[in-house]
Amino acid sequence: MTEPSNMAERSASTMDSTLGFELIEAGEEVARGRFVVTDRVRQPMGIVHGGAYAAMAESLASATTYLHVSGQGNIAVGQSNHTSFLRPVSSGTVHAEGRRRHRGRTTWVWEVDFTDDEGRLCAITRVTMAVRPAPAG
Amino acid sequence: MTEPSNMAERSASTMDSTLGFELIEAGEEVARGRFVVTDRVRQPMGIVHGGAYAAMAESLASATTYLHVSGQGNIAVGQSNHTSFLRPVSSGTVHAEGRRRHRGRTTWVWEVDFTDDEGRLCAITRVTMAVRPAPAG
Amino acid sequence: MTEPSNMAERSASTMDSTLGFELIEAGEEVARGRFVVTDRVRQPMGIVHGGAYAAMAESLASATTYLHVSGQGNIAVGQSNHTSFLRPVSSGTVHAEGRRRHRGRTTWVWEVDFTDDEGRLCAITRVTMAVRPAPAG
Amino acid sequence: MTEPSNMAERSASTMDSTLGFELIEAGEEVARGRFVVTDRVRQPMGIVHGGAYAAMAESLASATTYLHVSGQGNIAVGQSNHTSFLRPVSSGTVHAEGRRRHRGRTTWVWEVDFTDDEGRLCAITRVTMAVRPAPAG
Repeated sequence: MTEPSNMAERSASTMDSTLGFELIEAGEEVARGRFVVTDRVRQPMGIVHGGAYAAMAESLASATTYLHVSGQGNIAVGQSNHTSFLRPVSSGTVHAEGRRRHRGRTTWVWEVDFTDDEGRLCAITRVTMAVRPAPAG
Repeated sequence: MTEPSNMAERSASTMDSTLGFELIEAGEEVARGRFVVTDRVRQPMGIVHGGAYAAMAESLASATTYLHVSGQGNIAVGQSNHTSFLRPVSSGTVHAEGRRRHRGRTTWVWEVDFTDDEGRLCAITRVTMAVRPAPAG
Repeated sequence: MTEPSNMAERSASTMDSTLGFELIEAGEEVARGRFVVTDRVRQPMGIVHGGAYAAMAESLASATTYLHVSGQGNIAVGQSNHTSFLRPVSSGTVHAEGRRRHRGRTTWVWEVDFTDDEGRLCAITRVTMAVRPAPAG
Repeated sequence: MTEPSNMAERSASTMDSTLGFELIEAGEEVARGRFVVTDRVRQPMGIVHGGAYAAMAESLASATTYLHVSGQGNIAVGQSNHTSFLRPVSSGTVHAEGRRRHRGRTTWVWEVDFTDDEGRLCAITRVTMAVRPAPAG
């Protein structure tokens, strides 16, 4: 995988595409993505499911970290995801912006902010990625 | 909503059904659910997406808490979800069992264990639900 | 309590003073504090104890939130504290800067960054404070 | 270090002894400790400081993990500590019981329950310990 578009391609039949997640930017320090609010990311009350934020943050951090460690023969594996829900969203688009807070030898830590179309903060996630040598073969 | 089956019905077109989540038990102290591992819950590497565990825990805790507070005119709103990923799963069924650790006036706290078909622990989640008066009307 | 200095006074014989915590700024959106690295905040290996970061963040968020909600007859109660340890510190001063990420009716959320004397990020904490009516009397 | 009593000895002048923490049991799957509630672990309102629970859990998980990985030339380093506060305690003894939830090659995960003298659950912590080769020399 060498660029975000390949990620989109690879995940054509996976959870990312099932939920309509888009990866927009996968920089070494900043990552951005978004998803449109439709029923597939809603819970029964009509608002965005808490798991949709957690999943988007996980995708963003995983894909981006992988992109930047794979050149050294490493993979990135999700270790922990902590999401706080601050404001319900029921329509429009949810925008995710991740900032890398730590780049260690064995872990990367990302913090992801989610905003609605008016720019209001809706959820925040801290993701810890483990960086490990790629399995042989 | 008075019983789990209604929950399933209500969520017919929402994220729960999109990802194939099943709610099996919604007791006041124990809740259980599961999902079958298909591409819709996988990430690009072929293993279960971290967000699938987070989402299942959120659904389990939300639906169960709501069931037990709605009789007093309250609703349950997800406040925080912290999932740790312990062992990758690539096929079979993922089983979730939640235990209520705290029942306060304004918050309920659940811990959810995820196991694979061999009973091995794959992920753990702590979910904090806020309990609030239902909006009028 | 009307200003940070009073907070220091009140806590003269409590954990804050036992560990040497200083509260420097208690603004509505930004809070700052620090502690000098001595044995009382070290663990057996000679580095700062993880609990020292967690405790400092808790003090900072609690005191600052209380300061800004007490005028409306409310108190602030710690609900959750999640600290990630990024870089060990063995001497000098640890500097804490908290930013308020959410001001809700019933919860405030703070994120606190810890840096060493060279400005390197050493730990990060997310603190959720519950805001409740002050008990009568 | 080969037994808990040595741990107590090593930490004679560190945060553990400053706060009065006792390590009672350091088994491979279960660990126990406690601390008496005095002013040194209280916050200004007179209840146990949230950081005291976080610190005790960190000590318990660190010392116990270290004890069981040091024989293979490894050390244990705290990576993440997430504590939820469920019930305030203002006097008596706080009892900690940790259960190891995961023993991986590079991380151990512990969950610690805190109870008061009446056995009521007061706080819960999830601690992730990184296991790393001991530095040479």
